[in-house]
Amino acid sequence: MSVHVIAYDTANPGDTSSLMMHVARFDPGRIRRLALLVKTEGNSEVNDFSREYAMLSAQTALTAWGGDDLVKRTTFLFSTGCEGAMTPFGYLFVDEEDAAPGAPDSKRLAIGCARSRVLAGPEIGTPAHADIVAQTVKDAIRDAGVGVDDVALVIVKTPVMSHVPSTEAPAGGSKRITSAYSKAVGALGAGVALGEVDRRRVVQDAFDVDLHLHARRAMVFSGSELDCVEIMLLANRAGAGGDLRIETGQLADCIDADGLKDMLRNAGCVFDDRGRLCDPEKIVAMLIKAGIAPDGSLRGCRTTIKTSHIDMDKHVRAAIGGVAASIVGTCRNFISANTVHQAPPGGGLCACIVRAP
Amino acid sequence: MSVHVIAYDTANPGDTSSLMMHVARFDPGRIRRLALLVKTEGNSEVNDFSREYAMLSAQTALTAWGGDDLVKRTTFLFSTGCEGAMTPFGYLFVDEEDAAPGAPDSKRLAIGCARSRVLAGPEIGTPAHADIVAQTVKDAIRDAGVGVDDVALVIVKTPVMSHVPSTEAPAGGSKRITSAYSKAVGALGAGVALGEVDRRRVVQDAFDVDLHLHARRAMVFSGSELDCVEIMLLANRAGAGGDLRIETGQLADCIDADGLKDMLRNAGCVFDDRGRLCDPEKIVAMLIKAGIAPDGSLRGCRTTIKTSHIDMDKHVRAAIGGVAASIVGTCRNFISANTVHQAPPGGGLCACIVRAP
Amino acid sequence: MSVHVIAYDTANPGDTSSLMMHVARFDPGRIRRLALLVKTEGNSEVNDFSREYAMLSAQTALTAWGGDDLVKRTTFLFSTGCEGAMTPFGYLFVDEEDAAPGAPDSKRLAIGCARSRVLAGPEIGTPAHADIVAQTVKDAIRDAGVGVDDVALVIVKTPVMSHVPSTEAPAGGSKRITSAYSKAVGALGAGVALGEVDRRRVVQDAFDVDLHLHARRAMVFSGSELDCVEIMLLANRAGAGGDLRIETGQLADCIDADGLKDMLRNAGCVFDDRGRLCDPEKIVAMLIKAGIAPDGSLRGCRTTIKTSHIDMDKHVRAAIGGVAASIVGTCRNFISANTVHQAPPGGGLCACIVRAP
Amino acid sequence: MSVHVIAYDTANPGDTSSLMMHVARFDPGRIRRLALLVKTEGNSEVNDFSREYAMLSAQTALTAWGGDDLVKRTTFLFSTGCEGAMTPFGYLFVDEEDAAPGAPDSKRLAIGCARSRVLAGPEIGTPAHADIVAQTVKDAIRDAGVGVDDVALVIVKTPVMSHVPSTEAPAGGSKRITSAYSKAVGALGAGVALGEVDRRRVVQDAFDVDLHLHARRAMVFSGSELDCVEIMLLANRAGAGGDLRIETGQLADCIDADGLKDMLRNAGCVFDDRGRLCDPEKIVAMLIKAGIAPDGSLRGCRTTIKTSHIDMDKHVRAAIGGVAASIVGTCRNFISANTVHQAPPGGGLCACIVRAP
Repeated sequence: MSVHVIAYDTANPGDTSSLMMHVARFDPGRIRRLALLVKTEGNSEVNDFSREYAMLSAQTALTAWGGDDLVKRTTFLFSTGCEGAMTPFGYLFVDEEDAAPGAPDSKRLAIGCARSRVLAGPEIGTPAHADIVAQTVKDAIRDAGVGVDDVALVIVKTPVMSHVPSTEAPAGGSKRITSAYSKAVGALGAGVALGEVDRRRVVQDAFDVDLHLHARRAMVFSGSELDCVEIMLLANRAGAGGDLRIETGQLADCIDADGLKDMLRNAGCVFDDRGRLCDPEKIVAMLIKAGIAPDGSLRGCRTTIKTSHIDMDKHVRAAIGGVAASIVGTCRNFISANTVHQAPPGGGLCACIVRAP
Repeated sequence: MSVHVIAYDTANPGDTSSLMMHVARFDPGRIRRLALLVKTEGNSEVNDFSREYAMLSAQTALTAWGGDDLVKRTTFLFSTGCEGAMTPFGYLFVDEEDAAPGAPDSKRLAIGCARSRVLAGPEIGTPAHADIVAQTVKDAIRDAGVGVDDVALVIVKTPVMSHVPSTEAPAGGSKRITSAYSKAVGALGAGVALGEVDRRRVVQDAFDVDLHLHARRAMVFSGSELDCVEIMLLANRAGAGGDLRIETGQLADCIDADGLKDMLRNAGCVFDDRGRLCDPEKIVAMLIKAGIAPDGSLRGCRTTIKTSHIDMDKHVRAAIGGVAASIVGTCRNFISANTVHQAPPGGGLCACIVRAP
Repeated sequence: MSVHVIAYDTANPGDTSSLMMHVARFDPGRIRRLALLVKTEGNSEVNDFSREYAMLSAQTALTAWGGDDLVKRTTFLFSTGCEGAMTPFGYLFVDEEDAAPGAPDSKRLAIGCARSRVLAGPEIGTPAHADIVAQTVKDAIRDAGVGVDDVALVIVKTPVMSHVPSTEAPAGGSKRITSAYSKAVGALGAGVALGEVDRRRVVQDAFDVDLHLHARRAMVFSGSELDCVEIMLLANRAGAGGDLRIETGQLADCIDADGLKDMLRNAGCVFDDRGRLCDPEKIVAMLIKAGIAPDGSLRGCRTTIKTSHIDMDKHVRAAIGGVAASIVGTCRNFISANTVHQAPPGGGLCACIVRAP
Repeated sequence: MSVHVIAYDTANPGDTSSLMMHVARFDPGRIRRLALLVKTEGNSEVNDFSREYAMLSAQTALTAWGGDDLVKRTTFLFSTGCEGAMTPFGYLFVDEEDAAPGAPDSKRLAIGCARSRVLAGPEIGTPAHADIVAQTVKDAIRDAGVGVDDVALVIVKTPVMSHVPSTEAPAGGSKRITSAYSKAVGALGAGVALGEVDRRRVVQDAFDVDLHLHARRAMVFSGSELDCVEIMLLANRAGAGGDLRIETGQLADCIDADGLKDMLRNAGCVFDDRGRLCDPEKIVAMLIKAGIAPDGSLRGCRTTIKTSHIDMDKHVRAAIGGVAASIVGTCRNFISANTVHQAPPGGGLCACIVRAP
């Protein structure tokens, strides 16, 4: 199997013309897995429906082209928020069955996808929820045909408990119904599956509190519309076809240009002696998640990131988005915020998919 | 005379404790010019009063310390908007009378300040307004004791015509009452004084329309509370005291890391072979103004900068602010947006004040 | 023919369950006209896609139920903005072919719909555009089978010229690409068709300027996605079936409770001696459009409606929405803002559909 | 003593011209108490500094006129948020020592003011904090020279615990640092002092949870800048001078026109048989606080009040503000939101000061 990754633009959240132009290159019958990782451009608040609009549009178009079966093999990961130097766009991942196997001695990009059973309301936001995430990550590792060490990045989509009857105080308190809490659970669950987090520390009181406990290869998203856990996992697998590889890195904070450059160098990119990227065409995808320290400070300075009428995630995305675009020279980077349990407090993580030499 | 430049933090817009701690080092009687260039942290919309609050607080504190006479010799340049990797802070500029003159063979930082007469409402937004800006810039050049070629940066503060009776359609249309229009007039006036703009092209229809006509060393701010033009000008003057110098640069766009680095290199800063700044302590001040192309695109990508519920200036400041902070390693950078007639469409300008070797 | 009007709720913009439950009562083959007048709940700014999401969802559901032909006979009027005491909901209008004609001596609610040809870009925002609106209103009057005097309310949906190449200054200036300008053109066109506006005064310079020129029975909406003019018109027609009637009223301003009550009294509603509505169940639909005076004042008081970070239309909708809900006792009222050329400056208009005695 | 109440307008938050024109009528030496109850017009979010700017401006102007002693006898109650049909304005309360006592047999408006000691950080948000509120209300009752039953309205200003070190989880959880929590404590404390709330039910777990426990004559505001509890209390006192009286009422919800009218009728206002107020000139002040049901519904309809990018308090203020202005015919009404423990869930309270016959 070979994984293809294609960045496609959107004129608005409902626009699928570029997506469908690219997907048309493939034979739907030979697509093992399809995944869309998309940034939409609504206001990124509770009343932003650009994500739902974009998903409905993409599902409709893909169904018309490849039928219900293809849509069932497709993972939809849509996220809002394109502030500053970001463009609204998507990455199309196609895992295609090959005529011939890849070279056994080189590792190439592989995808694994999995979906959990439906979670019951009272499970959401508990250690049992984290266990389900861990199990679903393991399922996705198996789907990718790799070992734990081959995994470069786990993308977790996890439900939010959106409503708690006011008569009962849930364990975890009212925080438990927030998106941050849901991400916390997802991150620790993934961290357990990846061997990065000790299962014994994943207790109710740890979520969104014990912030130094964190995974290192997970990006977590939450959705109040979701009733199960969805995983898309990226790895390098010996014998995979195609010419792509993925590299993961860590960010010290949301302006960590050096962290991004180190990852790109590790992936084989070259910079000149003035620090400029020489081979931007080699980069097929950039994925970044960054956060802000709990006290809102950055490099010893007070910021307004947590004390503004604009949500903190928008500030963070715009800052790291500017940094990333200034390095790679394009605005087509998938950038998100809130790294609770996905990095140390205030830190972040990043990944790039590049063409192998 | 020697110019001192000190960055001071604020805990909130009304906080003058750090300002007053720093200013207390000086003898008010020997201060020729004082200037405050400050970023406040309100919502940066029409109902943001953080600027007025900060100005009133600073004026009250400075009056209590140095008396009305000192305040009359002080230029207040307050601007809102600290998105992302920016800290709310101020630069204190003190032009102090020296015991001994500086070395005649080296150029050092000098300040010139000037204020125009009060403008009549109908003058605002016309070529006559631009001529007043030009004349006030010339007054400030004289105040600094320099020639036109010595000028590195002209900071213009210019009134906005905030109300047009609906019965009369002003020349320039309803656009004329906008902040962008007022900045356009200020920029072209400054450009004429600096010899960068041909006076014959400064006609009513050019403002905010003939966008390729632009100054190269002017940053313009507007204020609806203002009834005159205020100029603070920064230059390098032979024989000036102190150890500071200023360098100006140009930005291709709001993610132009190379433009910022080129300016810093020209100012004498050193970068290692991985592109990292080696001597950040040398930098005393960073001033940046950046814009976005009229069609909202950036490096060939669509952005949401002009099609968002968040004002475009906030997107731009957050993007270039992230880039700047990632290079110099601090969030204490004075960053603003809207470069109408101050740079080519979509471009920007930057300046840094550094300690001379 | 009989017109049925049904208010239906939505759990979110993509929810069509209540709509489809109500529409299922009808036989699609006997539906002459279907119309949806819907309020969606996005942020009501340029990056609000709740309207597009809701339209796509409704079109998909109606197509599945009644086929493409039904959708072609359907008018979709979706508008965002549900601030304060408003609920996100829709009015379903069904014009059904009757077995038996209505009583010839009583007038009952009738609908007329029409759509213009596609407008060319340069036409939009010109008197020619207004003429096309006028012609389309006449077509809708004919479709409803009524005379001009029978018309109670014309709902106009009109395109916005969303892009003007920067090299050409359009007649009407940059204002011409705004939603307000587009509404201005639509309102004056409708006013001409209704005999309320003198065609000779509908000149380029009048749009959004000559504000005392206005229609009296038109509510206008604009959409940048639209390329033609769409009209849905409500009238009382002798011989129509059903038991509904429509009444129109005028509002002095956006807190005009007396204006709303006068309209309801004229429609046959009864208030007790404490000013409380006695028969709310009689009211089937409420449609309101209100504005604010050009100087932003209301009853002699300064307001922040035009000087806030929140768009003026949201302030206006929330104010009149509260007033309307306090009178009729429900939040299911269709409320919109911006009454340029649809009422005197600062005024508004209203309509109600009631069950006839 | 006679209490005078004067509404004064502001051109912006820093404008004190109308305030000072009105206050100049009085002899500062004969002013027993001064109070300002003011609405400012910032964005009403965490980065709104219009309140601080207005307070500093008013304090500076009053100090220049009446000296520090007068300012010490002054209560400053400034609140942001003037959405929709509200005007930014203030009520000036002057309690003046009289030459002659008032008539002993009629009750007239009286003011009582009190301030608590400084609260320690760990006290804030605990039952001890509520006890301090209760004691301070009792002090203000004594200052007003009235009994508990004479009290019409207690205005409470109470500190917010703005920072909890992340290493310690406070009793009450992270909610305890919110403005709503602080208001909850203030309301229950006032309710205890007024005999409306049973002290035994004022326990840590009740705050912002046991919502059916509530005071009936308290409006509570919070401020993160405050370190003590401040009370301004309005009552009718036998023997007081002047010609003003105050009346309190209850609101069922944020569109309860009948509740407002009932209060006005109880205060002696007259409505005609169409429900229109006949004697608006009799009303000297209107004070309203309204809320929204925990599930966000209103009269059985879903609203977006709790599911919008706009804070719920703005929606509520705009709705009830429109209703109030439509009844009294002016936008000079002091309207605020969040009625936690000040009314039943979703309810509100109101008060008016009128000229006695």
